[in-house]
Amino acid sequence: MTWIEDPEFAADKPFGPQTLPYGVLVTASGPVVAVRVGKHALPLRGVADSLGPRLSELVGARSLDPLLAAGRARWRELRERLTELVTADRAPAGAELVRTDWHTMVLPFTVADYVDFYSSPHHARNVSRILRRGASELPENWTHLPVGYHGRAGTVRVSGTDVPRPSGQRRTTGDRNPAFGPTRRLDFEAEVGFVCGGETASRVPTEDFAEHCFGVALVNDWSARDLQLWESQPLGPFLAKSFATSIAGWITPLEAFEHARIALPEREHALHDYLAETEPWGLDLSLEVRCNDIVLSRPRFADMAWSPAQQLAHLTVNGATVRPGDLFASGTVSGPAKEERGCLLELTWGGAEPITLDDGEQRTFLQDGDRVTLGGTAPGPDGSVIGLSEVTGTVLSATWR
Amino acid sequence: MTWIEDPEFAADKPFGPQTLPYGVLVTASGPVVAVRVGKHALPLRGVADSLGPRLSELVGARSLDPLLAAGRARWRELRERLTELVTADRAPAGAELVRTDWHTMVLPFTVADYVDFYSSPHHARNVSRILRRGASELPENWTHLPVGYHGRAGTVRVSGTDVPRPSGQRRTTGDRNPAFGPTRRLDFEAEVGFVCGGETASRVPTEDFAEHCFGVALVNDWSARDLQLWESQPLGPFLAKSFATSIAGWITPLEAFEHARIALPEREHALHDYLAETEPWGLDLSLEVRCNDIVLSRPRFADMAWSPAQQLAHLTVNGATVRPGDLFASGTVSGPAKEERGCLLELTWGGAEPITLDDGEQRTFLQDGDRVTLGGTAPGPDGSVIGLSEVTGTVLSATWR
Repeated sequence: MTWIEDPEFAADKPFGPQTLPYGVLVTASGPVVAVRVGKHALPLRGVADSLGPRLSELVGARSLDPLLAAGRARWRELRERLTELVTADRAPAGAELVRTDWHTMVLPFTVADYVDFYSSPHHARNVSRILRRGASELPENWTHLPVGYHGRAGTVRVSGTDVPRPSGQRRTTGDRNPAFGPTRRLDFEAEVGFVCGGETASRVPTEDFAEHCFGVALVNDWSARDLQLWESQPLGPFLAKSFATSIAGWITPLEAFEHARIALPEREHALHDYLAETEPWGLDLSLEVRCNDIVLSRPRFADMAWSPAQQLAHLTVNGATVRPGDLFASGTVSGPAKEERGCLLELTWGGAEPITLDDGEQRTFLQDGDRVTLGGTAPGPDGSVIGLSEVTGTVLSATWR
Repeated sequence: MTWIEDPEFAADKPFGPQTLPYGVLVTASGPVVAVRVGKHALPLRGVADSLGPRLSELVGARSLDPLLAAGRARWRELRERLTELVTADRAPAGAELVRTDWHTMVLPFTVADYVDFYSSPHHARNVSRILRRGASELPENWTHLPVGYHGRAGTVRVSGTDVPRPSGQRRTTGDRNPAFGPTRRLDFEAEVGFVCGGETASRVPTEDFAEHCFGVALVNDWSARDLQLWESQPLGPFLAKSFATSIAGWITPLEAFEHARIALPEREHALHDYLAETEPWGLDLSLEVRCNDIVLSRPRFADMAWSPAQQLAHLTVNGATVRPGDLFASGTVSGPAKEERGCLLELTWGGAEPITLDDGEQRTFLQDGDRVTLGGTAPGPDGSVIGLSEVTGTVLSATWR
């Protein structure tokens, strides 16, 4: 029996002592680094004496930045010490729990570079079929490398931040010139994000993934499909994505996913050496997408064809460096079944097949006021469950027409 | 007659008192903010008393970051005060000139997000013809919006940094599977970069450009053409660009280009309101590309179809924010004539027409050891010339095969 009296802080609950994600809460004394325990959070500044000087200086700032830079050995040490503290009979000196639902969270780290991959074969095939009218093939390079592109780091927003509908150019089929105005095809994309830390490095082999990946967080890569269709040739998506990308406020340490590691689906052909995995970094994550509290989809991360270790190896194979604060996301997580599709573009087949929410309302794309929430879980030790903290955002009407 | 005894610090020279770019030099006491005066630099910490507390705190750091954040009014004030100081008869107290060629420079600011545009119609048409075998048309969206994409901020390097040849996947025509190894088609791209500052803002109208653009610097957007060809569909260039982007160490304040402002080339059709310019932000910059000190090309920025003010308006029209440290580059600057092309892909027509350097050596793409240097000038006040500081980089052999 731990000193933390919270029925959600139990081994059979998603935010029990097996999970322990980090985030930054705004308290009366400003933003503080905290660890989530059930429905509560433990600000770490208060327990500095129990952490000792070396660990407490990593969590004494207003963000996770010093912790991200500290590297794997310190990450492990801090998690072990916190596990002792939160499972002890008696509260450590200075410990003060706060309710997570009473405090605002801020973006927990400075996003350095943001990269978005495209690693679900089901998503990539569906997008080909929908946008290229009947083509069912993956792009030629798709099975040889994890396709990805850079996104905008400066507009990554913490969960709970509203998302105004973006405006931009779009062209309807048959029109000669593009129109300008609020997007008519606002979409979400259910993704899993990986937060990097440790030493700045290039050419990170797949077996070194854990040295450079601090933790995992759900990401909603909001997308304006009409803007995207018009702008993306020849250099890829730009304004269709750059207006906002939402990330969960709580980052779950990579160690928590040790029991979720699985092999990737079988491949058609061998990979170049730098993409081969000696130990699997596929992850058995179950996601859930809700719109206005109605479940739209339950994508499984196990269906992804490229692991985060392969993505990071690819990202750095050309000599590009990865540094603390870099964030990369998996790409939309979609499975083979309709109820496993991770975005509305697929769920409504490009808007041709509206879906009906449980309250009878129909959707092709998102309407103003819609609240999109992503959640998820992973298998933990001894039959427990690791919770992936939710990322949520509400669509506001366009502020500029 | 000024106290600065340097024949290059004269009104008829590119780095006279009409230019005054800012950079960060490494001195015995570490990196210091300095202003360039001819072949010398004046570290600003030494003249703090003459600047006063408000201005000196903006230039007392190890980077230009505080200055970038300070905004247009302070930028103007500092430039006016420095103009007084460097053109005075007597040296201000504490002034100590250093030789620019005796000191290393560091990246002068923290690059927030990096965006690369594609705004030369000559470049875009040539690329279409070369890569799409005979197609001569611009992409459909090209005349309606400044096409662009996000690049990697973490690999922007200061001038003088060597560039190891990147490795990656490439596929030769006719091959079924891609090969892996050092790029065989390493290229430069001569571009002009715009360094952002001032308040974080979105929807920046073209008339507010100067409030958010601190200054101008030449950029070499190194490109691995074989990697690019294989990876870019459907999401755009990624590893072909992310290994390195070089930027000049000296950033020239936007004010210096007041006499270089010109109207853009005429357009075929009207633009959406947010892209219209009330006052022109085309710039009459003359660039020069050298490889191993031999001039390869002299592109003119006046040939660009989109101005930096239009690029920033487009970048932020969807609600995306621009913040201090954001860098965006123009895209390869190419003119209609062969000797005005800004990259080897165009100069050698995809490698089909090798060029001969003055020493008789031939090139299709860059060889190990090649040193690429971009320079440029703009018209200044009273017939003077504004120098754009050079950006240079030497290709090293691949460190990983």
